[in-house]
Amino acid sequence: MSGKPGDEGGAKPRESTPRVARASKPEGTCVRVGRVEIGGPGFVVMAGPCAVEGLEQTEQTATAVAASGAHVLRGGVFKPRTSPYAFQGMGEPGLRVLAEAARKVGLPIVSEVMESAQIPLMAEHVDILQVGARNMQNFPLLRALGKVRKPVLLKRGLAATFQEWMMAAEYLLDGGNEQVILCERGIRTFETAMRNTLDLAAVALAKQRTHLPVIVDPSHATGEPELIQPMALAAAAAGADGLIIEVHPRPEQALCDGQQALTPERFQQLMRRLPGVLHAVDRHLWRPEVPAHVAGAR
Amino acid sequence: MSGKPGDEGGAKPRESTPRVARASKPEGTCVRVGRVEIGGPGFVVMAGPCAVEGLEQTEQTATAVAASGAHVLRGGVFKPRTSPYAFQGMGEPGLRVLAEAARKVGLPIVSEVMESAQIPLMAEHVDILQVGARNMQNFPLLRALGKVRKPVLLKRGLAATFQEWMMAAEYLLDGGNEQVILCERGIRTFETAMRNTLDLAAVALAKQRTHLPVIVDPSHATGEPELIQPMALAAAAAGADGLIIEVHPRPEQALCDGQQALTPERFQQLMRRLPGVLHAVDRHLWRPEVPAHVAGAR
Amino acid sequence: MSGKPGDEGGAKPRESTPRVARASKPEGTCVRVGRVEIGGPGFVVMAGPCAVEGLEQTEQTATAVAASGAHVLRGGVFKPRTSPYAFQGMGEPGLRVLAEAARKVGLPIVSEVMESAQIPLMAEHVDILQVGARNMQNFPLLRALGKVRKPVLLKRGLAATFQEWMMAAEYLLDGGNEQVILCERGIRTFETAMRNTLDLAAVALAKQRTHLPVIVDPSHATGEPELIQPMALAAAAAGADGLIIEVHPRPEQALCDGQQALTPERFQQLMRRLPGVLHAVDRHLWRPEVPAHVAGAR
Amino acid sequence: MSGKPGDEGGAKPRESTPRVARASKPEGTCVRVGRVEIGGPGFVVMAGPCAVEGLEQTEQTATAVAASGAHVLRGGVFKPRTSPYAFQGMGEPGLRVLAEAARKVGLPIVSEVMESAQIPLMAEHVDILQVGARNMQNFPLLRALGKVRKPVLLKRGLAATFQEWMMAAEYLLDGGNEQVILCERGIRTFETAMRNTLDLAAVALAKQRTHLPVIVDPSHATGEPELIQPMALAAAAAGADGLIIEVHPRPEQALCDGQQALTPERFQQLMRRLPGVLHAVDRHLWRPEVPAHVAGAR
Repeated sequence: MSGKPGDEGGAKPRESTPRVARASKPEGTCVRVGRVEIGGPGFVVMAGPCAVEGLEQTEQTATAVAASGAHVLRGGVFKPRTSPYAFQGMGEPGLRVLAEAARKVGLPIVSEVMESAQIPLMAEHVDILQVGARNMQNFPLLRALGKVRKPVLLKRGLAATFQEWMMAAEYLLDGGNEQVILCERGIRTFETAMRNTLDLAAVALAKQRTHLPVIVDPSHATGEPELIQPMALAAAAAGADGLIIEVHPRPEQALCDGQQALTPERFQQLMRRLPGVLHAVDRHLWRPEVPAHVAGAR
Repeated sequence: MSGKPGDEGGAKPRESTPRVARASKPEGTCVRVGRVEIGGPGFVVMAGPCAVEGLEQTEQTATAVAASGAHVLRGGVFKPRTSPYAFQGMGEPGLRVLAEAARKVGLPIVSEVMESAQIPLMAEHVDILQVGARNMQNFPLLRALGKVRKPVLLKRGLAATFQEWMMAAEYLLDGGNEQVILCERGIRTFETAMRNTLDLAAVALAKQRTHLPVIVDPSHATGEPELIQPMALAAAAAGADGLIIEVHPRPEQALCDGQQALTPERFQQLMRRLPGVLHAVDRHLWRPEVPAHVAGAR
Repeated sequence: MSGKPGDEGGAKPRESTPRVARASKPEGTCVRVGRVEIGGPGFVVMAGPCAVEGLEQTEQTATAVAASGAHVLRGGVFKPRTSPYAFQGMGEPGLRVLAEAARKVGLPIVSEVMESAQIPLMAEHVDILQVGARNMQNFPLLRALGKVRKPVLLKRGLAATFQEWMMAAEYLLDGGNEQVILCERGIRTFETAMRNTLDLAAVALAKQRTHLPVIVDPSHATGEPELIQPMALAAAAAGADGLIIEVHPRPEQALCDGQQALTPERFQQLMRRLPGVLHAVDRHLWRPEVPAHVAGAR
Repeated sequence: MSGKPGDEGGAKPRESTPRVARASKPEGTCVRVGRVEIGGPGFVVMAGPCAVEGLEQTEQTATAVAASGAHVLRGGVFKPRTSPYAFQGMGEPGLRVLAEAARKVGLPIVSEVMESAQIPLMAEHVDILQVGARNMQNFPLLRALGKVRKPVLLKRGLAATFQEWMMAAEYLLDGGNEQVILCERGIRTFETAMRNTLDLAAVALAKQRTHLPVIVDPSHATGEPELIQPMALAAAAAGADGLIIEVHPRPEQALCDGQQALTPERFQQLMRRLPGVLHAVDRHLWRPEVPAHVAGAR
């Protein structure tokens, strides 16, 4: 805890997150992961399996998403599951599988860390440390990640207000870690037709009020493969800086959230539809070393 | 009530709305209002004041939105207001003002009808009869509108599930009126940073599961002028067939919902950003008599 | 519309409902229906079928609830149903059945009115006109009921904030009808284990902030017979002035909401449990002509 | 993780929590803390400050709540706060203050543990380890507490469904800790008049479907001192096994959640109203060594 520039009770909402506020860094934050830049003009796509299940599934998925143009490999090895009897992830062995698959295709990795004690191990293999929706207000974890010098992907809690999400990010920045990527993944509402309700207005608002990159997870937000492509395109149009998408070679056999995974074919289809929408909002799929004037002239 | 092809209790959800289901009309419904076609390849923009306040304000707004390319003039004369002490609309005199303004700029009109008794008067002047969010489950009104031969714009209730919204549309079709346009306008959630939570996944779902046109109201959904353009572009990318947007020449003086109205300048700006996104999803702003092969080649 | 003592925009929430505010009538409003007093020290129980289905079912239910001590007979003849293909109520013939059943057991009637046009017919036979949850913001209906000289039971909308509910009541009082009974019937939340989420804190708040009687509908709030008794007792402890409960002689055969109806036996059991809790909060089941000092000494 | 008696995907909801299900222990679980029994016929009241602020405040509160008949002293030393700039609790020194205050008045302690690493320290001083609402799905914490041989108070997450709450408890029982007390503390809904929406039906449901004791936190649920007493009485009537209530000698000076704290006077008043309601539902305030026939004859 530091110089206390605001207070939960008395301060005005916008002033209570001085470090994430746009005004504190009007040019915006660009998070670098290897060569990939998140939050710049390039739009970044993270893709991979919900859970790492084994070598074959992981390498097959990594190869497929890399071939379609994904920039970051996602994959869970520590899985927060509602039921104690559900598959809880492969743990450390899964981490080695994931790292090996990523190395082969040359992609950086994003993976979830569930508690402070996992940070040293995860930081060794993973390029972006993900805070899951259920941990958005796990303050000891946020404090610990504030001291790490690795990018953090902060998912919005499923019942977190916009302001609470911003304050969770403020914990990270207050701790000294400015490499924070926000991720909207749907909020819990009365609606049951979709898994969650994707709140794209919160993405636009986060882009306006903060200097942090904001990406969207249409897989968890909708839970429906048919809705992922339209929501991915909508996210791009709304100003998001990227996507994180679940892909599985055989969704019906997945050990976790298979019903919402795209097949590699559908993922490829989505990657082909994105450039048009991005172009319309003066963006492009991220690619290395493209000078701004070239990107703009595409 | 007719041949009862389904039942609230026993039937499966999708089967319980046989008349709005996509399967009943795979080619889709195109609602015609004058020359304007809603639900075809052209994207339709309805715009105008929240409430008709007087001749000058209405004509000024109508002229501005027509000049920017809007296709339909919106304006409320009967206003559902939370407080009995708030401005309740101009009523019948407002209807004449609205009709006169629309005639001058050559646009058809959409306006809200609050009860069955208003239908004859409204139907005389208005081209699309709007059912407001608070009346989505006003079943006598839906029954009465089912017998009218005018298009109906059915707004989603602010706490209506997707299925309830579809069933409200089924009331209209079951009554014999197939000219139904669905309108997503944000749902009520725990979030207070925006007026409502825009549910664009429901728009994509409605396009997949029904044959009806679906438009989006980003003004009521967000209540924030800064969020209207990004959400309008997102709606276009998500597959919506059009928009309905509040515009006021002097938002700060508006008698109703001024805080969410766009100025004519911001509306024009939005109209200039739409074509790019629409093009990326193989659509275009509606315009008369453009053969499909020309639109596709733009 | 009258002297506009407040305004939706500028006024403070509590001041915006001057006529329902406790301050305007500190002694509280007691609504009289025949001999029954709602809002006094006596606790009033309304019971009967969700829908009037026929003579036998209605008379059987009326006889049973009267025998168990219910004070008002409930029964729907015009039913708002989500699906156009569900049973929509018996309509006018059902009204005659209900009136006859009530006459035989000597109970006044509460029944739902769905639109202004039904008011004259309903007012002829019914003692309390119910506004259903879906019509809480049907403002033309509220305006029309404001001019009627019969008590109105105003159910809270399923996504209505406390303040919106109070403003709906203000419409009735502003129209001149002060015989208003508020009814909490559960709100719509993310929770699916119950039909709705019963908000008893809103009942306590309404008792503190307004002078109107407040009753609770645990049948619609929970949708589960097992939860009706505990919630009815909780309502009594929280300070409610009464209950409205669905009873059906054969719940499994009911044409509407049978899954939440109590059998006459379970209703009787509930009526036997209420007096103890009421006594603990200095109340009692309403009964005619009991002087206050006797009630207190019970 | 153990013998996997159920699975998140395929199993039916009730079967997916075999260890908390009522059927697995029909006689119910009674959690013992010193002499106090939670889940038996006696109703248990936990009370104290939201946060331990210092010796004087803590001892003053402890003395007051003990004098009014509270059975357990509550007080937070590690505080989960939305803002990184808000008071985060006294930490370990606060724990010693709390333990000393509790020792003087002879009450056991309940206090929140925020991460696994705090368990050894907390377990040394505290009698009941509380899992806060924001940590209900902190699975590493639940796993760690499953191995502890101390009672755990499991608060419902503010957007947790009933089923998710039960599954969180299942994590504890699956780990080997059967001393689990459930605590309903209000859920997050669209309503803003109260801090949260108290879901008493979930309390009644938990009593029916599980064998675990269930208590209610009306302080966090309502955030309004005026609503705490009616909700506490309602909880007792609904079948809860106890309450946890925030008390502060000078609420307006509290460093945390002062607006919802009861003064010692109001707490005493509440303690005087509880026995009547409890008697009506065949319960009583817990007291040592009262044979059942005496309690029944009160």
